[in-house]
Amino acid sequence: MVGAGQLARMTCQASIGLGIGFRVLAASAADSAALICADTVTGDYTDPAGLLAFARGCDVVTFDHEQVPGGPLAELEKAAAAGSGPAVRPGRAALRYSQDKLAMRERLSALGVPCPRYAPVTGLDGVQACAARWGWPVVLKAVSGGYDGRGVWVCGTPAEAEAVLAHPVAVFAEEHVEFGAELAALVARSPHGQGAAYPVVQTVQRGGVCHEVLAPAPGLPPGLAAEAQRMALALAAELDVTGLLAVELFLDGGGLLVNELAMRPHNSGHWTIEGARTSQFEQHLRAVLDLPLGDPRLAAPHAVMANVFGAGPAGSGGSPPRAGGPGPVTEERDLRPSGGSGGSPPRASTADIFSRYVHVMAADPGVKVHLYGKQARPGRKIGHVTVLGSDVAGLRDRAARAAAYLATGNEEGE
Amino acid sequence: MVGAGQLARMTCQASIGLGIGFRVLAASAADSAALICADTVTGDYTDPAGLLAFARGCDVVTFDHEQVPGGPLAELEKAAAAGSGPAVRPGRAALRYSQDKLAMRERLSALGVPCPRYAPVTGLDGVQACAARWGWPVVLKAVSGGYDGRGVWVCGTPAEAEAVLAHPVAVFAEEHVEFGAELAALVARSPHGQGAAYPVVQTVQRGGVCHEVLAPAPGLPPGLAAEAQRMALALAAELDVTGLLAVELFLDGGGLLVNELAMRPHNSGHWTIEGARTSQFEQHLRAVLDLPLGDPRLAAPHAVMANVFGAGPAGSGGSPPRAGGPGPVTEERDLRPSGGSGGSPPRASTADIFSRYVHVMAADPGVKVHLYGKQARPGRKIGHVTVLGSDVAGLRDRAARAAAYLATGNEEGE
Repeated sequence: MVGAGQLARMTCQASIGLGIGFRVLAASAADSAALICADTVTGDYTDPAGLLAFARGCDVVTFDHEQVPGGPLAELEKAAAAGSGPAVRPGRAALRYSQDKLAMRERLSALGVPCPRYAPVTGLDGVQACAARWGWPVVLKAVSGGYDGRGVWVCGTPAEAEAVLAHPVAVFAEEHVEFGAELAALVARSPHGQGAAYPVVQTVQRGGVCHEVLAPAPGLPPGLAAEAQRMALALAAELDVTGLLAVELFLDGGGLLVNELAMRPHNSGHWTIEGARTSQFEQHLRAVLDLPLGDPRLAAPHAVMANVFGAGPAGSGGSPPRAGGPGPVTEERDLRPSGGSGGSPPRASTADIFSRYVHVMAADPGVKVHLYGKQARPGRKIGHVTVLGSDVAGLRDRAARAAAYLATGNEEGE
Repeated sequence: MVGAGQLARMTCQASIGLGIGFRVLAASAADSAALICADTVTGDYTDPAGLLAFARGCDVVTFDHEQVPGGPLAELEKAAAAGSGPAVRPGRAALRYSQDKLAMRERLSALGVPCPRYAPVTGLDGVQACAARWGWPVVLKAVSGGYDGRGVWVCGTPAEAEAVLAHPVAVFAEEHVEFGAELAALVARSPHGQGAAYPVVQTVQRGGVCHEVLAPAPGLPPGLAAEAQRMALALAAELDVTGLLAVELFLDGGGLLVNELAMRPHNSGHWTIEGARTSQFEQHLRAVLDLPLGDPRLAAPHAVMANVFGAGPAGSGGSPPRAGGPGPVTEERDLRPSGGSGGSPPRASTADIFSRYVHVMAADPGVKVHLYGKQARPGRKIGHVTVLGSDVAGLRDRAARAAAYLATGNEEGE
């Protein structure tokens, strides 16, 4: 697996159960997965020679992020085609649509998949033309490199749009959807073409960052849930995805709109570790290894997951409302300090958080804690908690309390 | 964790979720846990200096087997008492009763805990005296070092007893219990004294080796289940166990008799990974770290676990019926070739077994497979499978089919 964040860490855990040899390519020995993986290679995923050397001896290469550039991916696929390198799953042709959001929008539109209205823009004139059709605010999105609300700017005025356009980041414009809820449909697809769909979940975001996941999405009409699953399975097939495909959706006036795609284990699927018969991490491994897929059904009536963040405000750079400031979108996921607070010391160390276990575990023996071994910088995802049961409101309360206490030592959060 | 078998491997998996640093002491880099643990030290657990060096920098030392001799354990505890080494959990005083079965019988008898009748014996006269009181067969048990039926000989005649006594292994005699079922009560106890009891399970043994575990034990009257849990919790407190205590029990004419004790994660608790809210591996970590214990309750109405063995007959040395021949009881758990087949080549490699995934996973998407990365020598435990659901007979059938196919490539087994 290229990349050694928490997704690789949890995939490594799943590989141990299956007895599958697992190697990660880490940027640093301190990366979340590098801390726990017995077969860690440190290197630069943008370097084709390094990638090829890393992949040597593997059967399959897969990814914990979408940042590997097309050039090195092409080199990997050339080696695979020549029989001198492992299979690349998902392949470059599919990954393109999780790397280039404008290409994704164009492809989805061509397929007739409902999306927010969008338009390529190069300057303020274009943004104003969009606003004339859709009204303000207009969303500007980085074509590539964004995640967790980074690279997404909700602009309420021409001046705000101008500030975003002043930075050397390629963007496109999108209508601002006043959605009723955000959903995620997670599916797996194997090279054989087998598909499996997890129950559709609701994601609860703040500042463009996922805070909570409710599985299954409470109150979602079964017809819409089935439609979301069908759409995700069809997209996985159309785009020739191998492995997981997470489709983030807006529920808008009773209809579904596709927001984002990710072709890897996804934050909206962490609940599956305890909450589904097959975790998304095992499922991704089974899919990319072309093994039969596991049962994706719920293991309890409801599961709620809450992310644990390093204490303190994230993205405190005084930037436009939806996310961090329009600075460069760095490629190193989760290794980038939160916007505006790069120079400040961490507010809570991993040791601080570990000591909070005593309280959290005593207060709720049923909460499942996952910490990623990451330094607790403000706003950074450092773990998650999951609770299973029947009463969604009660589960949300338990998950939120545990997550807040792990983050801050205070059940109310900061 | 001292020892790097599958128990350490699965404990390492649990440590990743909790974000706990985890180091193993392995005899070889090919050990099950050494293959996957990022912090593996290779060394000899009987060497006090090596053990102390291994433990340096840890907060707690615990064990995946009961083979560390008293001398090195005393050195570890001396360092802990002097503040120059980590806490040792469970401690030497408790471990003694899982290491020395005669001492265990004597202590349990003193505590009034029901056990099979037993007697120290040094020669055939003593065995015959036992037989005169209890009748044949008489069970001879190695005082230390036995597991999985090794070190246990059911002797039907004086000649069979004489053959066992001819070997330089200290044994004692025990009555042969015609039990109705074998049960296991698994509990955890923390240094604070908190206890947690898992549902009592039935274990199904063949040739002294656990093949299946049914959770909860089908048809066990609730009063007896509660009695077994109370007995296990009381024993954990009496013996000052920290971590897990597995109490193997015979159900005999409506009453319970203690058969064996183990102070570590136990084969009878593998079902808890998916089948309980807190896995035994996480529970052991929480207990030895003196964290509050997790919810031990079932996550489904029933769970069935079946072990996966390397193909071919185990212990084919023509030895007494219950187990392998009375050769020396080696200290290296799971690294010893099965008795009598030491010279023969492995019947199935790990690669063979991996290829069987295609069949097993397609036939049953709900079966959870755990392979340990071990070479598939005949009769050796190389993995297990777990299925969850409501219909015990159906679950047993599914688990048995999957385990047999993984072992032999044939649903009927060999």
